[in-house]
Amino acid sequence: MITSISNGQIKKIQQLLKKSRTRREEGLFAAEGIKMFREAPADRIEKIYMGASFAEKGTWKEILREKGLEGKAKDLTEIVEDKVFKSLSDTVTPQGVLCLVRIKDWSLEEMIPENKEPLLMVLEDLQDPGNLGTILRTGEGAGVTGIILSKNSVDIYNPKVIRSTMGSVYRMPFYYTSSIQEEILPWMKEKKITGYAAHLEGKNNYDQEDYTKAAAFFIGNEGNGLSRELSEKTDVWIRIPMEGKVESLNAAMASGILMYEAFRQRRNP
Amino acid sequence: MITSISNGQIKKIQQLLKKSRTRREEGLFAAEGIKMFREAPADRIEKIYMGASFAEKGTWKEILREKGLEGKAKDLTEIVEDKVFKSLSDTVTPQGVLCLVRIKDWSLEEMIPENKEPLLMVLEDLQDPGNLGTILRTGEGAGVTGIILSKNSVDIYNPKVIRSTMGSVYRMPFYYTSSIQEEILPWMKEKKITGYAAHLEGKNNYDQEDYTKAAAFFIGNEGNGLSRELSEKTDVWIRIPMEGKVESLNAAMASGILMYEAFRQRRNP
Repeated sequence: MITSISNGQIKKIQQLLKKSRTRREEGLFAAEGIKMFREAPADRIEKIYMGASFAEKGTWKEILREKGLEGKAKDLTEIVEDKVFKSLSDTVTPQGVLCLVRIKDWSLEEMIPENKEPLLMVLEDLQDPGNLGTILRTGEGAGVTGIILSKNSVDIYNPKVIRSTMGSVYRMPFYYTSSIQEEILPWMKEKKITGYAAHLEGKNNYDQEDYTKAAAFFIGNEGNGLSRELSEKTDVWIRIPMEGKVESLNAAMASGILMYEAFRQRRNP
Repeated sequence: MITSISNGQIKKIQQLLKKSRTRREEGLFAAEGIKMFREAPADRIEKIYMGASFAEKGTWKEILREKGLEGKAKDLTEIVEDKVFKSLSDTVTPQGVLCLVRIKDWSLEEMIPENKEPLLMVLEDLQDPGNLGTILRTGEGAGVTGIILSKNSVDIYNPKVIRSTMGSVYRMPFYYTSSIQEEILPWMKEKKITGYAAHLEGKNNYDQEDYTKAAAFFIGNEGNGLSRELSEKTDVWIRIPMEGKVESLNAAMASGILMYEAFRQRRNP
């Protein structure tokens, strides 16, 4: 049992929670909570840390069994004194379990499924962890096939992003690009994916365009919206109409409304 | 100029920021930031506190002029030393202005406009301030005519709610009810407003129902969803379809998707 916050493993976890550089270097991220443990892909789990009280309850054995990992329990698990475990959590009442999970690198090709038209989100410099997490979760629900992020966007393995994905972070293909303009736009052209940008000067409302073919929605930074350079290079501008004095919607909300409109059209072609 | 954090006015503001009971007793809430100052209704502004650096810039004079309040500048404004102002802000870089605004009490009748069918949100025990703020902002955009909250929901004048409304809190009619079952359901029946609850066992997808007539969407608590008692008493269950392994959407996101679907139908009847 680990009883000290100066234990080497505890320090490493704290670094993984705090620093995206450490996550990249180690090829690992920390996923806290029972849901994230339950949904973690068996072949990517590196280690499972449990608070002593959580370990006593024994539900973890069931979860390991479901994953076919019961034989590796001894190597995979580590018990941590409750108050030490608390130092690893940024929630007020930690659930008592945290997994280290191996980072998975997806390719752009994996966002183009064989059996359906791709539906992509292209996020430019998105900053808010909650927004990114919500886009992943809602995107999985809407059948989005991949999420592309500019390199200055928030790190997808930030603990706050992970928590708000509710597990989608394990399943949604995503890709950080060094340049949307130089790498993604030519690739989209080659793959015949139409780019749509929400824009106040769009000619049509978002529900007047057809998203049943290969489509990508461009969403900009929370404060500044999509950059002029990028919006000038997207194929179609669409308007999300707004009543009252609302000037814009929250970035995750705009994404969700667009993704679910595409999903609606694809269900009722 | 106020130079001490133990000044009586500063202490009062801190109470207004922290305690919903104080807000109720005083009939006031604190709205921080330039946008919230700019959009505050002139007849509800009680006092404007400005950090010394913000006051020097003079933009506030312009805003007061737009509001027709330039004559009252002396009574309405109070300069606060920058470091004291900082103690009033829960943001890292405060913008330097905070208004005390009078609370407005709306009636249920005000949610039924003369010129269009009502579109209501009924929120049961919603807890997350960001969710409530986002529902207000998106709801104003979608033409929602009122928001009804159970008494155990988060306080709409919580500073985090206010910030995420981006000003909608001044304009969106809302009403805290002592009982959705005993007060709201009979009122809806009388007014012929159909209640829709997102439910996994709904017969139809949400986009297969008609929301062009008087409609209300019921949304439950983040952790537990809509209570069984209440969902059994709503007129229609609707399903928000989800692909992948997603079990539910975030409460604000589900609200936004429903509200914008109603808005879409009302624009294209």
